[in-house]
Amino acid sequence: MQNAETASLAIGQRSLGDPRIRYPLWPPLSNGCPETSTPEVQYPLEVEYSPLADAGLFEQPPLPGIEHWAPLLPPLAERLGLGEGGTPLVDSPQLADWVGFDGPLFIKDESRNPTWSHKDRLNRCTVSAALHVDAPGVVAASPGNQGSSAAAYCAAADLPCLIIATSGGPPAVESQLLAYGATVVAVAREARWPLMRRVVAELGFHPVTNLTETHTGHPFGAEGYKTIAYELFLQLGKRAPAAVFVPTGYGELLFGIWKGFSELQALHAVDRVPAMIACEPEVRAPLTKALAESLPAASVPAAPTDAYSIACTVSGYRGVVAVRDSHGTAIPLSNQGLAEAHARMRQAGLWHELSSAASLAGLRRALASGMHFPGPVVCISTASGFKNVDVGREKIVESPSDWPSFRRTLKQLGLPT
Amino acid sequence: MQNAETASLAIGQRSLGDPRIRYPLWPPLSNGCPETSTPEVQYPLEVEYSPLADAGLFEQPPLPGIEHWAPLLPPLAERLGLGEGGTPLVDSPQLADWVGFDGPLFIKDESRNPTWSHKDRLNRCTVSAALHVDAPGVVAASPGNQGSSAAAYCAAADLPCLIIATSGGPPAVESQLLAYGATVVAVAREARWPLMRRVVAELGFHPVTNLTETHTGHPFGAEGYKTIAYELFLQLGKRAPAAVFVPTGYGELLFGIWKGFSELQALHAVDRVPAMIACEPEVRAPLTKALAESLPAASVPAAPTDAYSIACTVSGYRGVVAVRDSHGTAIPLSNQGLAEAHARMRQAGLWHELSSAASLAGLRRALASGMHFPGPVVCISTASGFKNVDVGREKIVESPSDWPSFRRTLKQLGLPT
Repeated sequence: MQNAETASLAIGQRSLGDPRIRYPLWPPLSNGCPETSTPEVQYPLEVEYSPLADAGLFEQPPLPGIEHWAPLLPPLAERLGLGEGGTPLVDSPQLADWVGFDGPLFIKDESRNPTWSHKDRLNRCTVSAALHVDAPGVVAASPGNQGSSAAAYCAAADLPCLIIATSGGPPAVESQLLAYGATVVAVAREARWPLMRRVVAELGFHPVTNLTETHTGHPFGAEGYKTIAYELFLQLGKRAPAAVFVPTGYGELLFGIWKGFSELQALHAVDRVPAMIACEPEVRAPLTKALAESLPAASVPAAPTDAYSIACTVSGYRGVVAVRDSHGTAIPLSNQGLAEAHARMRQAGLWHELSSAASLAGLRRALASGMHFPGPVVCISTASGFKNVDVGREKIVESPSDWPSFRRTLKQLGLPT
Repeated sequence: MQNAETASLAIGQRSLGDPRIRYPLWPPLSNGCPETSTPEVQYPLEVEYSPLADAGLFEQPPLPGIEHWAPLLPPLAERLGLGEGGTPLVDSPQLADWVGFDGPLFIKDESRNPTWSHKDRLNRCTVSAALHVDAPGVVAASPGNQGSSAAAYCAAADLPCLIIATSGGPPAVESQLLAYGATVVAVAREARWPLMRRVVAELGFHPVTNLTETHTGHPFGAEGYKTIAYELFLQLGKRAPAAVFVPTGYGELLFGIWKGFSELQALHAVDRVPAMIACEPEVRAPLTKALAESLPAASVPAAPTDAYSIACTVSGYRGVVAVRDSHGTAIPLSNQGLAEAHARMRQAGLWHELSSAASLAGLRRALASGMHFPGPVVCISTASGFKNVDVGREKIVESPSDWPSFRRTLKQLGLPT
């Protein structure tokens, strides 16, 4: 029973480059579709399922534990459940006012996951796959949310986990990576992916971050994100929102949510898929470029941004599929727009990662540019404020302890005294 | 509608010193019961309710948002909802093995709250009260979980928040406190409570931490913790666990969970209240002392511990009530016992605050001392690992980027290569 798996309807992998091309479910093809990929663009695989017979699946409440959706996910190791997902949908009239939206605005708070980011939905799937194929370990070239989430699920799986990092990451996230017992090694930035490929090829480790030039990633990962769509459907009273704004790096989260709604549409549970809006930092907006130039994926130069979780220099075909099929768009965001949305969320009691605020910043910019959304809008917020690069750097004000001095300090700080 | 409140059955405050003594619901008596308190011991108030007419309250799923339990809570400001509560109950056979328990062992993961600690359940209640009484602001003498949670709810309430701190707090938690826009001022340790009393008396701020010598706290706060009992009842399939192990500082959380189960017992939903086990650091274990000496509250000298969230030099009468009525006990824990439980939780994918591990450490010690629990046991884990004092201090290993050197580094670090 050590590696008992949930009952999944998954039957194989299908190429996004050409959906007629299919592969067996095992092993996960993390190098992308062998047939449609070219040296310039690599196409990801997705998971294909037998038709869902049990319509009762969407009659349950949206509680934590993505195994509740087991039929529509790749096989999950039962013992890896940390209660991922089942995150709250926070109704925020304050933030709706701020962006000037007259419909309901909801924040899907993905900081409320086991490692305080959305990545746990993905890693429940990918680390389960590593156990299934009996890998000697897992490797990730990510010292951020993905790395710490992979480390936690590997801890639960009792699998060695190697995180290939660079030095100078967010200090609190480095503590988190190390806490789960992962082996974390910092190397030169450009060496990360070549070393990761060697670790996969020579040590047989299971890769849970990308191996290819344009992004393909683990074929099972985005499946975990579908559960966000299932939860939103139930949390909104069995309907789809008008649009979902998604902080976007490689586009896996965007694609997963889109795919979940597409499945609900195929089941006639919703009559349309929400517009999927990719929110990228404008200093690195490869999906914006790919869409503008009608490319399956694009690359852009590396420019600095503190929104490190969505700072990518290449996109992947998943993002194009989600935006194009849903009649969505990609919105590049200024550093100032990101910072303003981040600050406004904190003022509403939501201290999240800077990258998480991309969705609210994107909605604000979309509305300012005249876009219209006939119905509720959801902004996905991906991770806790503890993931920010400046955590631990602030200093609090000190004051003498006698009442007159203390009161003067309060007055200087602007408190109503 | 700005301060619209939920429909509550609360009718007044009742003294824990003598349950025949009652006060109106407003204002909350944060200085303890005026009639039963003495200079040596102060007795807290609790909230009393009209009988619950709607039995359907416990037919709902345990989703986030404690307003789902509004009839049995003090009035909640509707707009303050951040989706607190609804936290997962993680089944952990691994941890059961480790402590040598043959029944099911569940971790109630309170790190999955809006500010990543259990305190959000309390502050939804206390900051709602501050809005109700039209306070010009809120004050807390806590730079830890309570301070950051109060700051978040004050941000959502658009109320000024003053946190009276000491310098040298956990670095990531200081960042969190400041992120929500609270005014945070560090003073000498012994000056914190005198200054807090002045802020309450002279500026009219609403206190959300304790004002008295022995602990009484906000009369509405522990009510929020009752929702943990309601959720556990539903998550366990409408039954009570055999025991609940609770990291214990002042005993508010312990009392709140006990009170929730007592209400369920009064409603004939459960046939008994679980044994409430208070888990204290042995270097500061005032409740252990109070119980041993049959006192309503006790004080102990300040001794250092990294489990700062449960490091208290006084207890309060709430803890005595919960343990005595439930036939529970208090367990003092060594620093080593705490550290071992903390490490073992990380190895199961749960990186939580050191204080959070007190419950698992307590269960381990209880079993080692021959205690027996005929049924499932719940360990409450209160907060995220980001709250630890050593966050941001670790350094990751650096390696040259060529494959032979990198592989040597992996081998030195013990990875299977």
